[in-house]
Amino acid sequence: MTRVCHFCSEVTDANLEYSDFSLVFIGKMCVLDKKPPQQSEGFKQRVIRALLYCTGEMQHFHIHMQDKIFLLQLVEWCLRGTSQVILVNNPLSGALILGALLLESPWLALLGILGLLASTFTAVILGQDCEEISSGHYGFNGMLVALLIGAFSSAGNWYWWLLLPACLGGATTTFLSSGLATILDRWDLPVSVFPFNTIILLYLACTGTSNPYFPNTPALPPGAPESTNLTQLHVPQWAESTSQQLSIKLLQGAVLGVGQIFACQTVGPSLLILVAVLIFSPILTVYAIFGSVIGIVAGLSVSVQQGFLYSGLAGFNGALGCMTVGAHFIFNWRTHLLSIASAFLSSYSDIALGNLLGFVGLPPSSWASTLTGTLMLLLTGKNLRGYRIPIEQVTSPEMNLHPCFQWSEANTDVADV
Amino acid sequence: MTRVCHFCSEVTDANLEYSDFSLVFIGKMCVLDKKPPQQSEGFKQRVIRALLYCTGEMQHFHIHMQDKIFLLQLVEWCLRGTSQVILVNNPLSGALILGALLLESPWLALLGILGLLASTFTAVILGQDCEEISSGHYGFNGMLVALLIGAFSSAGNWYWWLLLPACLGGATTTFLSSGLATILDRWDLPVSVFPFNTIILLYLACTGTSNPYFPNTPALPPGAPESTNLTQLHVPQWAESTSQQLSIKLLQGAVLGVGQIFACQTVGPSLLILVAVLIFSPILTVYAIFGSVIGIVAGLSVSVQQGFLYSGLAGFNGALGCMTVGAHFIFNWRTHLLSIASAFLSSYSDIALGNLLGFVGLPPSSWASTLTGTLMLLLTGKNLRGYRIPIEQVTSPEMNLHPCFQWSEANTDVADV
Amino acid sequence: MTRVCHFCSEVTDANLEYSDFSLVFIGKMCVLDKKPPQQSEGFKQRVIRALLYCTGEMQHFHIHMQDKIFLLQLVEWCLRGTSQVILVNNPLSGALILGALLLESPWLALLGILGLLASTFTAVILGQDCEEISSGHYGFNGMLVALLIGAFSSAGNWYWWLLLPACLGGATTTFLSSGLATILDRWDLPVSVFPFNTIILLYLACTGTSNPYFPNTPALPPGAPESTNLTQLHVPQWAESTSQQLSIKLLQGAVLGVGQIFACQTVGPSLLILVAVLIFSPILTVYAIFGSVIGIVAGLSVSVQQGFLYSGLAGFNGALGCMTVGAHFIFNWRTHLLSIASAFLSSYSDIALGNLLGFVGLPPSSWASTLTGTLMLLLTGKNLRGYRIPIEQVTSPEMNLHPCFQWSEANTDVADV
Repeated sequence: MTRVCHFCSEVTDANLEYSDFSLVFIGKMCVLDKKPPQQSEGFKQRVIRALLYCTGEMQHFHIHMQDKIFLLQLVEWCLRGTSQVILVNNPLSGALILGALLLESPWLALLGILGLLASTFTAVILGQDCEEISSGHYGFNGMLVALLIGAFSSAGNWYWWLLLPACLGGATTTFLSSGLATILDRWDLPVSVFPFNTIILLYLACTGTSNPYFPNTPALPPGAPESTNLTQLHVPQWAESTSQQLSIKLLQGAVLGVGQIFACQTVGPSLLILVAVLIFSPILTVYAIFGSVIGIVAGLSVSVQQGFLYSGLAGFNGALGCMTVGAHFIFNWRTHLLSIASAFLSSYSDIALGNLLGFVGLPPSSWASTLTGTLMLLLTGKNLRGYRIPIEQVTSPEMNLHPCFQWSEANTDVADV
Repeated sequence: MTRVCHFCSEVTDANLEYSDFSLVFIGKMCVLDKKPPQQSEGFKQRVIRALLYCTGEMQHFHIHMQDKIFLLQLVEWCLRGTSQVILVNNPLSGALILGALLLESPWLALLGILGLLASTFTAVILGQDCEEISSGHYGFNGMLVALLIGAFSSAGNWYWWLLLPACLGGATTTFLSSGLATILDRWDLPVSVFPFNTIILLYLACTGTSNPYFPNTPALPPGAPESTNLTQLHVPQWAESTSQQLSIKLLQGAVLGVGQIFACQTVGPSLLILVAVLIFSPILTVYAIFGSVIGIVAGLSVSVQQGFLYSGLAGFNGALGCMTVGAHFIFNWRTHLLSIASAFLSSYSDIALGNLLGFVGLPPSSWASTLTGTLMLLLTGKNLRGYRIPIEQVTSPEMNLHPCFQWSEANTDVADV
Repeated sequence: MTRVCHFCSEVTDANLEYSDFSLVFIGKMCVLDKKPPQQSEGFKQRVIRALLYCTGEMQHFHIHMQDKIFLLQLVEWCLRGTSQVILVNNPLSGALILGALLLESPWLALLGILGLLASTFTAVILGQDCEEISSGHYGFNGMLVALLIGAFSSAGNWYWWLLLPACLGGATTTFLSSGLATILDRWDLPVSVFPFNTIILLYLACTGTSNPYFPNTPALPPGAPESTNLTQLHVPQWAESTSQQLSIKLLQGAVLGVGQIFACQTVGPSLLILVAVLIFSPILTVYAIFGSVIGIVAGLSVSVQQGFLYSGLAGFNGALGCMTVGAHFIFNWRTHLLSIASAFLSSYSDIALGNLLGFVGLPPSSWASTLTGTLMLLLTGKNLRGYRIPIEQVTSPEMNLHPCFQWSEANTDVADV
């Protein structure tokens, strides 16, 4: 398993490289001294090596699984698919996220797995690229559709008829993924969650709130004035709550923002999802929280409903927008500024789309962050273009830190000479 | 007039081939034995040959017309344009459809012909490709726009002012066809009825329901609850109607689904339109009815209004979605499944778009089937990609049965050796 | 500074050419006799030469500014950016337009300049192409967004908080311009005012009419029935007004149509803007007024609200649609007809979009003319394709008159021989 560094065109052993690098990264953060491979390791180093085995893309594990039976491979594909929702490609992260979903609601977790299986199987039947299926690219949209179908249903948990739309919706996302890829490939853009956003909108518009078989809860626009009735009841509560309590609620909203990507509305599972991201990449975790906080700041600046802020709905588009830039650009201060801009634009767009779609009772889901992320990948400015990572080489941001540093050094050398 | 078989790269005489093949097709369905050309034919065979002359694309007729005066050629273009609405390219089918429209409403037929002429002439003036004009590619959008402008008008029949928007709307579709072709060509996609859908939406949004000059009837969303008044009147009727009567009504709805493509709302003209499709291709006819039935099943599954089911509005997007796949893919069991998927997706999308556009009083027209059909043509899965027919080689599905069969045989041979 | 004539492939001295040509153009309109360069000029000719120096693209001035300090260059960029809004590339026109805005409302002018600076600086920071920045391509969208944010605000003038969204909105347009350019370049299409239209819609949808910080005035759909209250008050007035008075009001509406491109609602500034266009190109000025008149005719034909006609809102999309064709096609009678078609289509689309977006209280801004203009540039008909000017060679229409005339002559010569 070799990997060509796309700056110095040097073929390096990616696995060794990454373990070495991560070790250093976690240890001293950013100091890069390539140590010679050691023959005898202490207990501590072996523990760290075991830990590192579970981080990043876990390519070792992927190679290890390739000669296993189909069922085990399918499990790996689905776990990777689960993690791809949040721009992560790591089966252990997927398992943690599934755990978080089970903790949140076993019914939703069941629906999600069903959608995941439906879309992955459809991809196999259509004969999509095997490498893409195995990295979960055809699973995450199906999972999200099924999760959201369950989350928006007003028929309560364990309403078995929902299995039908969850299954069909999941399968349809694969058609959309495959078709959209043909168009977006022209500009080297990822399909992202466009299929999910399209299908969930169509499903909710098709069934509506008063459907006798599949009734849904209507989505409230974030800018709607607080209903008088609610305000009257809440006024004493809000009046009593000190500014410290409000801060805590907002902080909680920022954490829930990450959970809302999977329609999680409690703190525990949201933290578990954050841990899942941390396993893959510490940088992405920082971006996720950062984006979520920016989303809340954006929400405060145009005074959206308080429920919108505290439930995490204000934060999740910011988090996704911020992470998209973090995952697709080489990490440096310029792309860091770009990720902040992306988070702000995502959040404001989300409020705008929420208000627009609220007129017809539909949620904005993650249209805002998907569109913003796609826009950011299209930028042509020469100060940014060089840091854009081609879609096929997107891995964890830490993997791209190394060549970047090397590249800067090489540059400096040339300048010195 | 030769035609290169795009599987075996063998140049064959298309006309002879087709007559021979069709003869066998209608006679024994699918048994392909190439008979030697006969010198003396019996009466029965001459009748069949005359019948076959009128089926398929009628290339003989097209060649025959090329040295005729412009007016006669224009008639052929317009007849082909009329039939292109329903993915058929046959002047006789066009004549039958025009007959059906005259039977349905002479006023609508007049408007349709006017739109057809306006858009065809605009294409001639703009200097579009002559071959495309002569096969009716610049006529069908104009015809549909003019038909629907008439069908949605609430000013009654023979309201002569409508000739103006019918004419202008028809001409505008040619601009859109020409412009969109530039974009869609990149992915080898047909322009389809995108121009019609765009222009009719703009016209209805522009004039609205209370316009003093061009008032329209508002479109009802399919998912709207039956108005209490209507229900009260209908309850006894529905209560009395047995399940057999309901089945007949639904069956009638399936036939009307094909007619609704031309805004026909009675059974007679709808059957005539089905005959018109049958002349071109029996396979497409089966797909049309099949898609329409699927549309009704989809409508029942989310319990849309009963009027939506019985009037054929539930079926026509399914029929078009099913036919699009049938016309653009080589017929086999895989593409057969794809056409079913396409019909379902078209139907559900149509209900969703109908509910969404119903908020602003607009009809979904055939957006759903157009978008779904386009999506299906973009699929990349290797199990389907090989059966996709390039846009320039799209003919009647029967024409592509032959190479496919040959190809399978050739494959088998190779495998045997 | 040489320029290659893209018909005869002859390298000509563009500056000399243009001065000579314009002299003749203004003098005798269309008679083209190339005079030998004169050594001694009279006073009259020197005045004319000074005048001509200020017309067209002022490339002399651009070259003259290239070795000046950054601040002066920035002023030139911003002036060109201001004029680019109305498809003009001339710093003097920009200065006149800024003057018109100051006359209309100093507050709006301030906001506009801020948006202009924000988007231009963002382009510099992103490292966009220097030539494009200096011709104002990254400024005009930002200016328009800032202007419209101010114009739609219901918080009154000198509400300082508005500087924040004006600045941010302006900066965001540069991201959109850069991203959209990557996509539209494939079809040699200009980015045009797509970024402005997108951002202003998002801003208005995000803040809404009842926002505590940034309240906006709701947009009224053009097709809405006149409110009873208003009608009752106005009836006597309208009844009294003779048809001559109405004509004058409509004529005034046509002039205001040009002003409305910059959200100007008074006659004086609108006339000043027309003068600014006249300096760049007399042909474009004619097209602007022509398009505005067509817009009013279109509005009358579907009986929109009277206020919509008199305020110029009916005309400005027609004007822009007409000018887009005028600027991007070589002037002759065919493209003249196309510009009329473009103006009509823009105007009707604007009314349609206005009615649609009016449901959610949003204005159609200039979506209609932008989409129509883009469509016209995509047309493939061979009678038009030859007259399309590639995006990089778009200058004032007068510059392209010459080669066209030459080309026709050359053609005639060949035909004669």
